[in-house]
Amino acid sequence: MRVLITSGGTTERIDDVRGISNFATGSLGKITAEQFLQAGHEVFLLASETAILPEAAENLTIIHITTTDSLVKNMEKLVPEVDAVVHTMAVSDYQPVFMTALSNFSDDFSKDDLLHFSAEKVRKISSNSDFQLMLLKKTPKVISYIKKWNPQVQLFGFKLLAGVSEQELVDVAQKSLVKNQADFIIANDLENITKTQHEALLISFDRIVKMHTKLEIAQSILEKAQEAYHG
Amino acid sequence: MRVLITSGGTTERIDDVRGISNFATGSLGKITAEQFLQAGHEVFLLASETAILPEAAENLTIIHITTTDSLVKNMEKLVPEVDAVVHTMAVSDYQPVFMTALSNFSDDFSKDDLLHFSAEKVRKISSNSDFQLMLLKKTPKVISYIKKWNPQVQLFGFKLLAGVSEQELVDVAQKSLVKNQADFIIANDLENITKTQHEALLISFDRIVKMHTKLEIAQSILEKAQEAYHG
Repeated sequence: MRVLITSGGTTERIDDVRGISNFATGSLGKITAEQFLQAGHEVFLLASETAILPEAAENLTIIHITTTDSLVKNMEKLVPEVDAVVHTMAVSDYQPVFMTALSNFSDDFSKDDLLHFSAEKVRKISSNSDFQLMLLKKTPKVISYIKKWNPQVQLFGFKLLAGVSEQELVDVAQKSLVKNQADFIIANDLENITKTQHEALLISFDRIVKMHTKLEIAQSILEKAQEAYHG
Repeated sequence: MRVLITSGGTTERIDDVRGISNFATGSLGKITAEQFLQAGHEVFLLASETAILPEAAENLTIIHITTTDSLVKNMEKLVPEVDAVVHTMAVSDYQPVFMTALSNFSDDFSKDDLLHFSAEKVRKISSNSDFQLMLLKKTPKVISYIKKWNPQVQLFGFKLLAGVSEQELVDVAQKSLVKNQADFIIANDLENITKTQHEALLISFDRIVKMHTKLEIAQSILEKAQEAYHG
């Protein structure tokens, strides 16, 4: 089986010296890659520069990702070539349109002023002003493209929430299954993730499996992917 | 001699899953630490989580830094204990005050509305809205505190600009010498930094030394710090 795993977090540039990053260590992606490699599968790992990586191996290809756009470009090429996609990467929900000194606006302004503001492109935004204003726009939802690029691929998506009930986790995951034509959504809550524990639910249309560690999550994904691959 | 080296870039949190990071690999901080260690000095390295680190050594203490605030707290404790400070870290110029859906504002609003907006604290900002607005305020200028914490310390500051003339680099560095009571400012331009080259000027009140690689920069800093230490 050939599997594509995304890992770590994307970064959206503000200027040449700073950007908005999603905090994600890539440890779940690393463990998942190791499980697939140990089972003899071929792994393509799309990982952020700061993600923790598995050791080099013959069946492992690592590609470094920075922005959501670079993730989309690389996935578009690779998704049609693989049997399963495990999309653990924390993708930026928003990307900066501009960041500029608040003093560039008059005292009263409108949403239209903001949406049509044309900011001067600079390599490094000056630190002279006391306040800066940043407008951000939604990034493309990468998970929604995957089945369009390859309708046959087994898709494992992730949904991270914060401080919600188990029922809400399940509801949100089930909506994501439908919306993104995912085969499985792993739903988890920030409040139930520590260094040693990682509570999560593996949700498909007919089942919910509870998992308690990253290793259990990785093993469950491997098991489900193999079942689907062998029909 | 005891030297404090800051390295990498700080990150300012937006919420529990994302933040604004300064891109900095920490490679100059690493090389500088290695030069001081090889010369038999004691090194305190304040480095971001993603910074490249020197190998563990007996005379090396590494402390991990995330935000500008955590950098200030750690430096306040350590600066009075050391003979020299090499402040290579790319510190965030701005930190988020809030990030909220643009739809939370009426069509017309004022700067006062922005400055007094009270955003609900959430662990993870929802991705439902098409646009978000972020207000950012200036962070404290860490370099300006160092001589206040320890008037005797030898201070090596850095100034990174983008696409300016050598004269402007010198002017900005000389202003920083005065403003921050620095002994040396290493001035460099983003456009003259590549993987193998790092053009920089070591500027003091009476001299300018040109350097072309990170190793040269580190060696010049060590040399100047030793001269000052031995009187």
